[in-house]
Amino acid sequence: MKIIIVGASGTMGKHLVKALEKEHEVITVASKGCDIDADITSPESIENLFRKAGSFDALISTAGPTFVGPWGKLNDAAFRKGVEGKMMGQINLVLIGQHYINPKGSFTLITGALTHEPQVNFANASAVNGAVEGFVRAAAIELDNGIRINAVSPTVIEDSPQYFPYFPGEIPTTMRQLEFMFRKSVFGKGTGHIIRA
Amino acid sequence: MKIIIVGASGTMGKHLVKALEKEHEVITVASKGCDIDADITSPESIENLFRKAGSFDALISTAGPTFVGPWGKLNDAAFRKGVEGKMMGQINLVLIGQHYINPKGSFTLITGALTHEPQVNFANASAVNGAVEGFVRAAAIELDNGIRINAVSPTVIEDSPQYFPYFPGEIPTTMRQLEFMFRKSVFGKGTGHIIRA
Repeated sequence: MKIIIVGASGTMGKHLVKALEKEHEVITVASKGCDIDADITSPESIENLFRKAGSFDALISTAGPTFVGPWGKLNDAAFRKGVEGKMMGQINLVLIGQHYINPKGSFTLITGALTHEPQVNFANASAVNGAVEGFVRAAAIELDNGIRINAVSPTVIEDSPQYFPYFPGEIPTTMRQLEFMFRKSVFGKGTGHIIRA
Repeated sequence: MKIIIVGASGTMGKHLVKALEKEHEVITVASKGCDIDADITSPESIENLFRKAGSFDALISTAGPTFVGPWGKLNDAAFRKGVEGKMMGQINLVLIGQHYINPKGSFTLITGALTHEPQVNFANASAVNGAVEGFVRAAAIELDNGIRINAVSPTVIEDSPQYFPYFPGEIPTTMRQLEFMFRKSVFGKGTGHIIRA
């Protein structure tokens, strides 16, 4: 299977590349330093990414920039970090990528527990996660040619312990759980699902 | 109670104005033709709206522009209708309005069943509804001075029968149900809730 991994240089991305490249053709994408450099906040850059990658069977996205910080600093400008990044970045990967993906291919986006379990400092992520999840359910009934779409929703990630203090009461998602949630989306048959740990 | 109703010229807004103005001081807001004209896609216009309105006890928003149309026409540009309107428009009403609202005041935003029950042609609304709901849950744990926030989530509205064919299987929300959902948010004590019919 030919799998594009967007956000391949991050904590989640690196783990998924290592786990999947043994048995699949993996194309890594990040802002820099991967097989293809792309800026997901730019539809032109996304179009260019797919032109370079050619047709593919699955796209995995772990790319989720959002504004993290005090509520008092959350204004329209700060909110755009998540809107352009984790929300429209990932939505545009689908809206544009659907014209390049093979029939019966799949898109798997990243969301997170903050959608339903807010934490202080993360309102931007809660909102854009909600957008990604709503979009995934809607896109699942619109996409043609048997193309599927799901989102993976971890809690705080085991390999990002610096975030643990900001997620009181959240049992961290292990890297193995994370990997298997993505496997369920890519190799299973479900569509429109929000896959939780 | 001094209540600002944004979207006061629409189907839902008109009903709520009529229902609430008997017992409360209602300030109507819409793009034009109301007590205060405002463009909710502009933070400057929102700031100006609150300066004109002065301190208040409750804000109700029924303002929800989104892109409705075929999936094939849903690109980044089309998606912005909902992002700037129903999503950031309403989010900015809260981020800015929190500096003008009285202690123990409340914000009530509009979302809709499409968040979890997608329909063809409405992916933009599904996404931005999800964003509004995620934001409401997060804002509820951040807002100071006892300020509350909820969202009202109707299905297709009884008084908008032109939409019924696009919502197969959805039992329309009556105007009375809609009014009482807003009453629960404004006059109840809940916060962070998505209030359904």
